[in-house]
Amino acid sequence: MSTERAIKSVAIIGLGLLGGSIGLAIAEHAPEIATAGYDADPKVRDKARELGLVGSVADSAADAVREADLVILCVPVGAMAGAAHDIADTLPAHAIVSDVGSSKQSVAEDLRAALPNNRVVPAHPVAGTEQSGPEAGFASLFENRWCILTPPTGTNGDAVNALSDFWTRLGARVELMDAEHHDLVLAVTSHIPHLIAYTIVGTASDLEDVTRSEVIKYSAGGFRDFTRIAASDPTMWRDVFLNNKPAVLEMLGRFTEDLTALQRAIRRDDGEALFELFTRTRAIRRGIIEEGQDDERPDFGREH
Amino acid sequence: MSTERAIKSVAIIGLGLLGGSIGLAIAEHAPEIATAGYDADPKVRDKARELGLVGSVADSAADAVREADLVILCVPVGAMAGAAHDIADTLPAHAIVSDVGSSKQSVAEDLRAALPNNRVVPAHPVAGTEQSGPEAGFASLFENRWCILTPPTGTNGDAVNALSDFWTRLGARVELMDAEHHDLVLAVTSHIPHLIAYTIVGTASDLEDVTRSEVIKYSAGGFRDFTRIAASDPTMWRDVFLNNKPAVLEMLGRFTEDLTALQRAIRRDDGEALFELFTRTRAIRRGIIEEGQDDERPDFGREH
Repeated sequence: MSTERAIKSVAIIGLGLLGGSIGLAIAEHAPEIATAGYDADPKVRDKARELGLVGSVADSAADAVREADLVILCVPVGAMAGAAHDIADTLPAHAIVSDVGSSKQSVAEDLRAALPNNRVVPAHPVAGTEQSGPEAGFASLFENRWCILTPPTGTNGDAVNALSDFWTRLGARVELMDAEHHDLVLAVTSHIPHLIAYTIVGTASDLEDVTRSEVIKYSAGGFRDFTRIAASDPTMWRDVFLNNKPAVLEMLGRFTEDLTALQRAIRRDDGEALFELFTRTRAIRRGIIEEGQDDERPDFGREH
Repeated sequence: MSTERAIKSVAIIGLGLLGGSIGLAIAEHAPEIATAGYDADPKVRDKARELGLVGSVADSAADAVREADLVILCVPVGAMAGAAHDIADTLPAHAIVSDVGSSKQSVAEDLRAALPNNRVVPAHPVAGTEQSGPEAGFASLFENRWCILTPPTGTNGDAVNALSDFWTRLGARVELMDAEHHDLVLAVTSHIPHLIAYTIVGTASDLEDVTRSEVIKYSAGGFRDFTRIAASDPTMWRDVFLNNKPAVLEMLGRFTEDLTALQRAIRRDDGEALFELFTRTRAIRRGIIEEGQDDERPDFGREH
């Protein structure tokens, strides 16, 4: 039998898209859990109060966590060390500390340095939109999305189970993974896609022989799909690339090799190589739709 | 006063997503225009009859165009020369010939070679979805999308005007452009985005240290956006790359330079360079939404 205390109170540090959505999802799916929140930006705190993202908004991170059974740090991964430092003195001894960051090895190191206990369980709900800030959150963000927990060796098992149950209640599916493997998987399913989307949008906006107005008008040819993720939060993404450097550079190297091979096929009129790749890639799309990870309607269900 | 005959009859050669959508859009927006169609695949012809994509389905391209005031070739750009050859003998002398291909210099050459007249007006409606085939079409595909006409010097002005009016009636906005410039603009707004989407999906599916199941499960981190356009028709896209080679290689070179610069910034921990680019790219997304070329709702309006 587990001796774990039930999670009755959650503190959310950082009240942007992710933090706000967690607050709203708790209110919807687990309304008996009390929520307290804090954001370093006073304007965000005001907005969070106005929108009721959490039960109470504290004026410091230290205050927000005093009663917490679970603390979730929802700040850019470059700000994790600072946030962990801010809560270290007032954190209850029994509290579980987790986060939502997109790189997990760096977060584990940052939290371990500031909070030397066995109840730190880094996590990453693979969910989001291109929008950011306290007004972007919504209660159903995590439904049917995967939340990856990356507990280091020696982490308290009951804490891991309690966090897993928590995310399941918010509608997510939970998977445990080694932090290093997480960082490699997410480099390819999230970080490199963002990097190349940012790049092509930058390339297009810097051209001198094609105007910005032309790029915008004819974006329905495919380009507009890339602009969505290239509109994501700049601070968050800068931090991801700086904090998951080895995996990002490794996957970027593979992508560049493959792109160079395709460039060579085009230059040599090798239609067969192009056709073979373009046929193979359809299978992955089918898998994503079958697994419920994307809208199967054409054009993502965009309105026509 | 124009002496141009009114377009009373349209022949559509190729009854896939584009051809089928043109047939359905005519039925909805210009029901007094008769439509005839043909597809090289007998199964597609049967499906087109069943779905009523056009008023009558002919058993040869030559037969389909006999009564046409306007012929629109809706075949992959690598099949344009063959299609033009097939209709050359039965094409009425007054008929306008156009197409929907994504590369315009190659199409202009192919049509000019087979149909030596001044009533060939190559065109490109910048619209589509990742789906293909006769069942993928719908009447509103062209609404508020741009259709680019690239009439070569010496093309009959009345023919250009008539085609422009035709596309306007189907809901499109029309722009005239030089074919060479078209090919450059579309290389960046459509062809390179498709190429890099196909590449990253290929890279992800070839990894040995990340499973395909992991790629699919965690695709909501950004990757799934790329899989949509990497599910597009392989034949169509093979042909585009082979037929717009110089512009594609030129734009690919610029993209690769920019990506290498970003890779260097990551390697050197240059957060400022990353932040600057990631901030700048948001403006293009805003422009696309303001111009009505994408859904402004988060996540393209995907259902949550």
